[in-house]
Amino acid sequence: MQAEPQPFDRVLSSMCTRPHPVAREAAEQFLATNPGDPGTYPTIAALEEDAIAMLGEIAGLENPSGYVASGGTEANIQALRIARERADVDRPNVVMPESGHFSFQKAADLLEIDLRIVPTDRNYRADLEAVQACVDAETAAIVGVAGTTEYGRVDPIPALGEIADSVDALLHVDAAWGGFVLPFTDAEWHFGHAPVDTMTIDPHKMGQAAVPAGGLLVRSSDLLDELAVDTPYLESTSQATLTGTRSGAGVASAVAAMEELWPTGYREQYVRSRNNAEWLADALEKRGYDVVDPTLPLVAADVSHSTFEALRDRGWRISRTGNDQLRVVCMPHVTREMLASFVADLDRLEMRASVPVTSVD
Amino acid sequence: MQAEPQPFDRVLSSMCTRPHPVAREAAEQFLATNPGDPGTYPTIAALEEDAIAMLGEIAGLENPSGYVASGGTEANIQALRIARERADVDRPNVVMPESGHFSFQKAADLLEIDLRIVPTDRNYRADLEAVQACVDAETAAIVGVAGTTEYGRVDPIPALGEIADSVDALLHVDAAWGGFVLPFTDAEWHFGHAPVDTMTIDPHKMGQAAVPAGGLLVRSSDLLDELAVDTPYLESTSQATLTGTRSGAGVASAVAAMEELWPTGYREQYVRSRNNAEWLADALEKRGYDVVDPTLPLVAADVSHSTFEALRDRGWRISRTGNDQLRVVCMPHVTREMLASFVADLDRLEMRASVPVTSVD
Repeated sequence: MQAEPQPFDRVLSSMCTRPHPVAREAAEQFLATNPGDPGTYPTIAALEEDAIAMLGEIAGLENPSGYVASGGTEANIQALRIARERADVDRPNVVMPESGHFSFQKAADLLEIDLRIVPTDRNYRADLEAVQACVDAETAAIVGVAGTTEYGRVDPIPALGEIADSVDALLHVDAAWGGFVLPFTDAEWHFGHAPVDTMTIDPHKMGQAAVPAGGLLVRSSDLLDELAVDTPYLESTSQATLTGTRSGAGVASAVAAMEELWPTGYREQYVRSRNNAEWLADALEKRGYDVVDPTLPLVAADVSHSTFEALRDRGWRISRTGNDQLRVVCMPHVTREMLASFVADLDRLEMRASVPVTSVD
Repeated sequence: MQAEPQPFDRVLSSMCTRPHPVAREAAEQFLATNPGDPGTYPTIAALEEDAIAMLGEIAGLENPSGYVASGGTEANIQALRIARERADVDRPNVVMPESGHFSFQKAADLLEIDLRIVPTDRNYRADLEAVQACVDAETAAIVGVAGTTEYGRVDPIPALGEIADSVDALLHVDAAWGGFVLPFTDAEWHFGHAPVDTMTIDPHKMGQAAVPAGGLLVRSSDLLDELAVDTPYLESTSQATLTGTRSGAGVASAVAAMEELWPTGYREQYVRSRNNAEWLADALEKRGYDVVDPTLPLVAADVSHSTFEALRDRGWRISRTGNDQLRVVCMPHVTREMLASFVADLDRLEMRASVPVTSVD
């Protein structure tokens, strides 16, 4: 291959990161295996059980069922599909805050269910009154997000669970990104905190596994049964996954990363990422930008279009929120040096008199 | 990782294989990239365009549109989803021979469309009269298989295309497995041979790429537009894939494999695999088993349950057809030596007087 992959040194936009070295090693070791065919590939099938056990531990679920998905999108699709199968109505709906990931729109289109999107409050969290007003007898599920895509917010999961219970709907928590940092905070987000039925939690985001390694967890295995399709020629008899052939590399890397990093390594990384986010937010505030104070390691700030484009031209991979703010995700590969360099470029572009850059230590 | 992946030396059941060395190298090189986020990862996004161009060349499509999917299942789901969106009826149906892969059942469940399954003929190919009798004004698509899962048969694709045209339905060809061997045969199976609208063709099967690398090809880009969902925070504006975050390793490995092996390497492999299948069919016939004569490198034969189980106990990864026959897929990793060893074990189990094993050369 003549082409070279783009380096990470300017990537501030991605919710994925470099796989941890042990995760990379495991991915390479198990590259030629397929957990979608457990009869042929029993070792990787057993490793997947280990992955689910560890994800259950992280997400407060004692007897976890689930599987390692292709990513958060698949997990979200499958969660809504479970809800659709469970709801016994003609036109089921799912209620979700506007901060929900676009994969829920993809799921709704695919599954032909109504996606009712409700506003968030001034803290970018699901507005409980709006959710309450929106649910009805045909609501199959409520979605709460634990680590939103644009602002890194955590919805009031227990309260959303109460509303779900009141209309006999399932509660799905999208912790695709948040799941590997929230254990080190006070947030109430998982199966132990609320009547959560299904959860998306992705090792290949903050979990530092290799892509593809998303995660779907369900409170009880009967929920997974809603997804099962018979598999006549494989040695197993049914399959609950959305895809067929699956990547053993992703599964093995998830196990390796979690064995290595849970909980201490992940905690240390959370602290580093949080400190980086706070440093960046502080640096931007000092310069007069409107900053959305980070609650998790994700920073948004009002930066002009032209400055944004100029930063992109300098090679920074950055993204925008729906409100057109600059959005920076402080993933494990994002160092203080990178952020200082980014802010220095910002200063040059805005032709700012040199503002003391606080120590990178 | 203490665990070791299972070796390939007894795997006769899988439609996947060891990735070619150049494919493995490319997969490892591009492990930490995500073609689902082309703004952040432009190199792998460009490589995906190369992959589609090459798949188009293999499948007789001049201006190909499509993408590298997680696998054949996703491609089949998306093809049926395109058909559902195109059909302007309340309850669309899809007509498929019974030899169609179970992923079509998964797709039908997901998409809430009717899957009408029609018998195959005595050659295990779609029975055209049965298909004709089954289609109606609500038929959204007809599925033809180019390299069936159980018997490696190729359906009469051009004739199926005529039936599809007659009821204004799409024609989808599942060439997930067959696509990388059929170019070297006389079969009429692709966009150049028939009014094919969509096709599944998987680099990670006979293409020798790493998992995950399936392929969806469509005759014109407007078909892909049926799948598009807006993507507010990524730098691209919409996404036609089923998954979100995707594996750059799979895409890169597909490009590397196809650059290396198309057409000469794939032709050579087809000849080897075909010869191996014929050798095995012959060896089994000599021993009195009822053999389904292979048309592509896949052999089925009547072997007793107990013998089958005993072979499995000896470590052979083998599978069964729906008619309970032994099924062996002659993938690139399957050597003449492996097959000879398999037949020797079969002989031991059946306590057969030694039958001369024809030369392995």
